[in-house]
Amino acid sequence: MTDGITPAARPGPGTRDLTPVPGDRFSFGLWTVGWQGRDPFGDATRPPLDPVETVHRLAGLGAYGVSLHDDDLIPFGASRSEREARIARFRAALDRTGLVVPMATVNLFTHPVFKDGGFTANDRGVRRYALRKTLRAIDLAAALGARVFVVWGGREGAESGAAKDARRALDRLKEAFDLLGEYVTEQRLDLRFAIEPKPNEPRGDLLLPTVGHALAFIERLERPRLYGVNPEVGHEQMAGLNFPHAVAQALWAGKLFHIDLNGQNGAKYDQDLRFGAGDLRSAFWLVDVLESAGYDGPRHFDFKPPRTEDADGVWASAAGCMRNYLILRERTAAFRADPRVRLALRAAGLDELARPTAPDGLPGLLADRAAFEEFDADRAGERGTAFEELDQLALDHLLGAG
Amino acid sequence: MTDGITPAARPGPGTRDLTPVPGDRFSFGLWTVGWQGRDPFGDATRPPLDPVETVHRLAGLGAYGVSLHDDDLIPFGASRSEREARIARFRAALDRTGLVVPMATVNLFTHPVFKDGGFTANDRGVRRYALRKTLRAIDLAAALGARVFVVWGGREGAESGAAKDARRALDRLKEAFDLLGEYVTEQRLDLRFAIEPKPNEPRGDLLLPTVGHALAFIERLERPRLYGVNPEVGHEQMAGLNFPHAVAQALWAGKLFHIDLNGQNGAKYDQDLRFGAGDLRSAFWLVDVLESAGYDGPRHFDFKPPRTEDADGVWASAAGCMRNYLILRERTAAFRADPRVRLALRAAGLDELARPTAPDGLPGLLADRAAFEEFDADRAGERGTAFEELDQLALDHLLGAG
Amino acid sequence: MTDGITPAARPGPGTRDLTPVPGDRFSFGLWTVGWQGRDPFGDATRPPLDPVETVHRLAGLGAYGVSLHDDDLIPFGASRSEREARIARFRAALDRTGLVVPMATVNLFTHPVFKDGGFTANDRGVRRYALRKTLRAIDLAAALGARVFVVWGGREGAESGAAKDARRALDRLKEAFDLLGEYVTEQRLDLRFAIEPKPNEPRGDLLLPTVGHALAFIERLERPRLYGVNPEVGHEQMAGLNFPHAVAQALWAGKLFHIDLNGQNGAKYDQDLRFGAGDLRSAFWLVDVLESAGYDGPRHFDFKPPRTEDADGVWASAAGCMRNYLILRERTAAFRADPRVRLALRAAGLDELARPTAPDGLPGLLADRAAFEEFDADRAGERGTAFEELDQLALDHLLGAG
Amino acid sequence: MTDGITPAARPGPGTRDLTPVPGDRFSFGLWTVGWQGRDPFGDATRPPLDPVETVHRLAGLGAYGVSLHDDDLIPFGASRSEREARIARFRAALDRTGLVVPMATVNLFTHPVFKDGGFTANDRGVRRYALRKTLRAIDLAAALGARVFVVWGGREGAESGAAKDARRALDRLKEAFDLLGEYVTEQRLDLRFAIEPKPNEPRGDLLLPTVGHALAFIERLERPRLYGVNPEVGHEQMAGLNFPHAVAQALWAGKLFHIDLNGQNGAKYDQDLRFGAGDLRSAFWLVDVLESAGYDGPRHFDFKPPRTEDADGVWASAAGCMRNYLILRERTAAFRADPRVRLALRAAGLDELARPTAPDGLPGLLADRAAFEEFDADRAGERGTAFEELDQLALDHLLGAG
Repeated sequence: MTDGITPAARPGPGTRDLTPVPGDRFSFGLWTVGWQGRDPFGDATRPPLDPVETVHRLAGLGAYGVSLHDDDLIPFGASRSEREARIARFRAALDRTGLVVPMATVNLFTHPVFKDGGFTANDRGVRRYALRKTLRAIDLAAALGARVFVVWGGREGAESGAAKDARRALDRLKEAFDLLGEYVTEQRLDLRFAIEPKPNEPRGDLLLPTVGHALAFIERLERPRLYGVNPEVGHEQMAGLNFPHAVAQALWAGKLFHIDLNGQNGAKYDQDLRFGAGDLRSAFWLVDVLESAGYDGPRHFDFKPPRTEDADGVWASAAGCMRNYLILRERTAAFRADPRVRLALRAAGLDELARPTAPDGLPGLLADRAAFEEFDADRAGERGTAFEELDQLALDHLLGAG
Repeated sequence: MTDGITPAARPGPGTRDLTPVPGDRFSFGLWTVGWQGRDPFGDATRPPLDPVETVHRLAGLGAYGVSLHDDDLIPFGASRSEREARIARFRAALDRTGLVVPMATVNLFTHPVFKDGGFTANDRGVRRYALRKTLRAIDLAAALGARVFVVWGGREGAESGAAKDARRALDRLKEAFDLLGEYVTEQRLDLRFAIEPKPNEPRGDLLLPTVGHALAFIERLERPRLYGVNPEVGHEQMAGLNFPHAVAQALWAGKLFHIDLNGQNGAKYDQDLRFGAGDLRSAFWLVDVLESAGYDGPRHFDFKPPRTEDADGVWASAAGCMRNYLILRERTAAFRADPRVRLALRAAGLDELARPTAPDGLPGLLADRAAFEEFDADRAGERGTAFEELDQLALDHLLGAG
Repeated sequence: MTDGITPAARPGPGTRDLTPVPGDRFSFGLWTVGWQGRDPFGDATRPPLDPVETVHRLAGLGAYGVSLHDDDLIPFGASRSEREARIARFRAALDRTGLVVPMATVNLFTHPVFKDGGFTANDRGVRRYALRKTLRAIDLAAALGARVFVVWGGREGAESGAAKDARRALDRLKEAFDLLGEYVTEQRLDLRFAIEPKPNEPRGDLLLPTVGHALAFIERLERPRLYGVNPEVGHEQMAGLNFPHAVAQALWAGKLFHIDLNGQNGAKYDQDLRFGAGDLRSAFWLVDVLESAGYDGPRHFDFKPPRTEDADGVWASAAGCMRNYLILRERTAAFRADPRVRLALRAAGLDELARPTAPDGLPGLLADRAAFEEFDADRAGERGTAFEELDQLALDHLLGAG
Repeated sequence: MTDGITPAARPGPGTRDLTPVPGDRFSFGLWTVGWQGRDPFGDATRPPLDPVETVHRLAGLGAYGVSLHDDDLIPFGASRSEREARIARFRAALDRTGLVVPMATVNLFTHPVFKDGGFTANDRGVRRYALRKTLRAIDLAAALGARVFVVWGGREGAESGAAKDARRALDRLKEAFDLLGEYVTEQRLDLRFAIEPKPNEPRGDLLLPTVGHALAFIERLERPRLYGVNPEVGHEQMAGLNFPHAVAQALWAGKLFHIDLNGQNGAKYDQDLRFGAGDLRSAFWLVDVLESAGYDGPRHFDFKPPRTEDADGVWASAAGCMRNYLILRERTAAFRADPRVRLALRAAGLDELARPTAPDGLPGLLADRAAFEEFDADRAGERGTAFEELDQLALDHLLGAG
C-alpha cells in the first residue's frame, strides 16, 4: 500500500459465489467440530467424532486443511503401536481427500498433571514432562507436514499473587521456547512456532495475555526469527481490545504466522462462536487487513459449535464460518474498489498518513518555521476529518446497502 | 531472588511510621492535584492551582518529586518571555523546597489540533507540529533535570476502522520515536523515554493498548535501549489485565523506566482514583514486585482527586496515596519476612520455579527416562499445590490479621 | 405474536428507499448534534450550535422530533425574560418546520452544585434545588408539548463506599419521584416519566445501574403507572448486557416509554457512537424487537458525533443514524417474511416456546406420567436445536446476502 | 439507621477470636467443596466427595449449615429406594453434627436435556420435565427443613438472537414460577423462593441477568411475596456492577432472602474464588451493609476451591471463606464504632442524606424561595464533600492500620 489508499494486493473481482474451495485456505481444528459440549456446568451433549470422519466432512465442505493437538489424534498415554496405527489411518484419510495439516499443536492443559501449567508449573518434574510431550508433538507435526507449531499456554498463569513469581515464570517460559527452538534447528525441521496469547481462562490470569505481550516476549528469545504469534479473535476481545489493530501490529512486526478465527461478545468467558457471530464490524476490518496485507497463511477456525447443536448443527456452524469469511472478503474488496471510498479515504487523509512525516530529517524539521512557529494550530484544529462519512460508506458496503 | 523465596532486596524492618519522606521517592504530576474536575458531563468544580503552590504543598506532605506536561507549567501558546518567567519562578520553588522533577512529558491531547492524534494524525502538518512541540518539551524536561520523558499517545487511535491504517500509523509512530531518540542522542541529553500504554479513552481504541504492545513496539525502533515503558495501574486494569504481571514482564525485559500509580475499578472509564482505592489485593502484589525487584525509580501518582472534593479533599487524597503505599510496603515486607510464609512458599514450589527446568540441556532432557517414559503423570496430577493456604497468609498480612 | 413465529405487527414490504420521513418517528436531542467535543482530555473542537438551526437541519434530514434538557435551550441561570424569548424563538422554529418535542428532560449533572447528585445529594439544600429545577423543567416540557419526561440520574452515585448509603439514597430517590408524580397528577399534565439507567460514568457507580434495577425501583413508587424506562443502547452494553433482552423485558413489563439509540463497543467509557456503529448484530435484534412489538414511541438518537468531525461530519453522522435504522428495519422485515426463516424458527421450536407449558395446571402436570416418570431425558438431550442454522439465516439477512 | 450514621444493629465489640461458630450462620453448598475441578479445558483433578464426609468436615470447621442441589445428594435418575437411602444417611449425619439445611435448590443445567434451558427451553416437553424435577426438589428441600429454595436459571438464555424470543421466554418463566408458588401454597410449605441472577455463562446471555432484572420480574408474579433474590458476589461483578449497591437495593425492596458469597476479579469467566479473594474493598462494604441492615439469613459460600488444590487445599479454602468474613465483620464494626468515623460521616453529610428532602410536601417546597429563587448554586457547588478523607478512614480500618 504505497499511497495509503490503493490496496497493494488487490483481491479479485467481487463474486457472488460463496462456495469455499481449497484455494481459500480454510482450515479447522479437530477439536472444534469435535467438541462434545462439556462446559463448566454441564455434561457432554454430543458423542465423540472420529478424526477420519472429520477429514472427510471438512473436505466435502471445501476446507483445505485440518489442524490438531497431539491428544486429538492419539489418546493421552496411548501405546506406541496404537499411536502408529492412528497416524497411519489419519494420513490415509488426508491422502484420500487431499486435505493438508498446515498446523499442529500440543495439549498442555487437559490432564490434571498440567493444572498449574506446563512450561511454568512450579513442579519441575511437570515442566520436564511438558517439554518432552511437546517435543513428541513436534515430531508428530513434522511427520504430518505441518509448517506451523502453535503453543497456547492455557494453564501458564495463576489465580493468586504469591502462587506464581511472574519474572521467574518468564525465565522458565523462555528456557522452554529456547529449547524447542534448538530442537527444530538441530533437527532441521521446517517448522516455526506461533505463540497464542490469552488473557485468562482457564487460569485467573495467564502469562502473555495479549498479542503485544507475546510479541515482546519473543524478542528476548535466542532465535527470535523462529517465533511469531497466533492471535485469536475472541482472546483479544475478552480484554476489550481491537482485534484488527492487534493483527496489524503482528503483521507490522512480521510475526503473523497463523490466525484463529471465531466470534466473541466482549469481556466474558471464552465463547468460541463461529466466525461472523460476535462483533461483525470488527470481523469486516479483520478480513480487510488480512486481505490487504496479502496474508497467505491458513484462515483457521478455532470455534466451538454451541452445545445446543447436534451433528447437523455442527456442520452447519462450520460451513457458516467459511461462508461468512467469503461474504466479508467480497464486501471488503468492493469497499476498497469503490471510487467513492477512494475519494473518502483521501478526504480523511489516509494518503497523508502513508507519507513520512519528516523526510527532511531532524535538521529539516527543526529549521521549518511552517512546522511550528508559523503553524496555525487553532485553524488546523477546526478542520474536520470526514471519518463519519467514511465509516458510513464502510458500513454500507458491509451491509451490501451501497 | 536466587532461591525463589528469599527477596533479593530485603526491605527494612517493618515500622509503624507512615509519614512519607523524600527517600520514599514519591512524586506527583502537576495535573493530578491540579485537576479542576471537568469531566464529560460536568464543568470544573475547583479553581486552577498555582504550580508553585503545588510544589510547596507536595514538599510539605513529604513527596520528593513533581512531574509535568509542558502545558501544565507554560500555557499553550505562551510567549517566550512568559515561558522563561514561569520556568524561573517554578525553579525557584523547587530550589526552596528541594523537590526535584524526575519526569516530564508533553501534552499532545488537549488542544483541538490533536483531535486525530499527534505523531499519527492523518494530517501531516499536525504530525510535524506535534514533533516540534515534543522536542521543545524535551528541552524543558532537560532544563528541569528530568531523567525520564514520558510519552502517552492519548489520541493516537481511532473510533472507526477505515479512519486509521494501523500499520501505516505504526510506521509514523516509529518514525517519530526514532527522531526523538536521534535528538536526545545528538544533544547528549541524559534522558530516556517511557511509553505509556492505554487501551482506549479518549479515542475508541488506542495504538499500543497495553504494556505488552508497547514493549514489542520498542524492539522495532532504531535505538531500543533509549525506550522503556511507563505502565499505569488503571490503564492495564481497564483491559481486565493483571497489573503486577505487566510490571513483572516490563521488569523482566529491563524496561520499567517509570510507573504511574493510581486506582481503578475494572473495565470502565479511566477513573484515576487515589492509590489504594480500586483493586487493593492487586496493589499489594504491585508493591511486592516493585520492592522485591529493587525498582529504584519514582513512585509516581497519576491520579485525579474526585471532583466532589475541595482543596482540603485534594490534599487529603494526595496524602492518602503515599500513606497507602507505605502501609502496603510494610505489609509486603512483613509477608516476605514471615517464616510461615517461607514454608508456605516452599510447599507451593516457588523455590522449584526458580530452578532451571533443563540444566542438562536438550540431550540430557531427551535421555532422561524419568522425565517422560517413566513419569507418573496421574500421580503428579494428584499432588496439591497449597496455593490457597499461601494466598490466605498473604491476605492475612495485607489485612494485618496475622 | 400468537404462534411465536408470525410477527403480530408486520412491517411493510421491504423497500430500498432509505430516505427518512416524519412517519419513521426519528428524533434527536439538541445536545447530541450540539455536542462541542469537550472530553476528559480535550477542549471543545466545535462551536456552539443554535437550537433553531438544529431544528431546521433535523427537519431537513427527515426527523420528526427534537428533545432537550432545560439547559440546552435556556442557559443555566437565565433571567425570566431571556427564558421566555428563547422559548418563543424555539417554538417558532418548531412551527415553521413541523418538528415536535416528544420528550424533554432536566440537566442535573453539569453544574458543580450537582457534583454529588441531584435527588440523592447528601446536601439537602442541593436536593431541594434539584427538585425545584426539575419541576421547572417539567413545566417547560409540558409547554413544548412533550409527552415523556426523561430522568437520567447521571450523578446519583458514588466513588467510594461510605460516601453514599445506598438504602437511604433510594429512600431519597423514591421521595423525589413520588413528588414529581404528585406534581404532574395535580397539574393534570399528560406526561409520563422515563427513568434512564446507566451503570457508571460520570460517577464510579450509579444507582439504578441497569434497566432491571430501574424497573424494580418503579414498583416501589406511589404511582407506578406514571413511570417507565428509557433504555440506552450503550449504557446497558457498558455492563456487557444484552440490550435487546433488556428492551424485551421492559416491553414485557409494559414499561418501554422511550428509547435512546446509539452505538458502543463493550465495557469502556460511554462512547455514544452513531446508531449502527458498535455492535451491529445487537442493533439488528434491537430493531427486530422494537418493530415486532409494535413500539410506537420515538426512535430517539442519543449519540455524540466524534470530536474529530466538523459541522459536515456532524450532520453526516446524524443522517447515518437514521439510514442505519432504516436499513435494519428493512432487513429484519425481510428476515421475518422469509419462508425459509419461518421453517427454521419452527425447527428451532419458537412456536413451542409461545405455547403455555402447563395449560392443564398443576394437577394436570403432576398427573402426567409422560412429563416425568416416562420422560426419556437422555433422548430429549440428544435432539439438536438447529439454532446455528437459524442464526446464519439471520446473519445472511443482516448482510443482504440471502 | 435513623440518623444516617449510628448503626441500627450495632455489632458486638471487636474481638480477635476468628474461630467460626454456628451462631455466625455460615453455610456451604455440597457442590462447592465437592467440586472436582472439571473446567472447559481440563479433566477432574479431585475425586468425588461423600456428602456425609462434607457434613462432618463443615461442622468441624464451625459452619452451621449445608445446602444442596437435588442431584448433589441423589444422583440423576436414581431409583426410589436409592433416593430414600441417601436421604436417610445424609439426615443421620445432620443429626449427629447439628448441621442444618437452610437452603436447597434444583439442578436444571448439568444434564444435556437442559442444554436449551429448563423453564424456558423451546422444547415444551423439557419445560414440563424441568417443572416436575423442581417440584420434586421442593419436596426434598421441605423434607430437609430448608426455608429457602434457590432457583438459578443457569441455562435460561441463548447464544444467538432468534433462538429465544425473550418476551415469550419471560412468559414461560412467569408461568413456571407461578406454578411453583401455587404448589408451596397448596402444600402449605414454609418455603420461599430466592431467584439467583447471572449475566452469562454457561449461555451467551442469560435472562434475569442482574439483581435488578430479577427484582423487577418478581413484581409480575401472582404471589410476589413468596419470591426474593439470591445475589452472588461474582455474578454481579461479572457485569462490572457494584455488589453492595445491588444488595442494598434488594434489602431496600425487602427481598434479600439469601446470599451467595465468593470472589471474582472483574468481567471474565465465573471464578467462584473463596470469599475475600477478588475485590476486597467491595467485600468490606458488603459485610458492612449486611451487618448494618441486620440481615439474619445464612452467610452462604458458593465458591470453587481452585482445581490446583488437593483435599487439604479444599478445606483450607473453605476455612478461609469464614475467616475472611469474620475479619471483615470485625473491621466494619470497628469502623462504625470509631468516633472519628462518625465525625467524618457527619462532615460528609450522611446524616443529611437520612433526612427527608421535602417533609413540607410539594406545596412547602414550591413556596420555599430559599430552595430555588434565592439558592446560591455556585456557592453550594464549591463546598467539598470530604469523601476522600472518609474513604481513607475506611481503608485504614479495613487494613487494621488505624
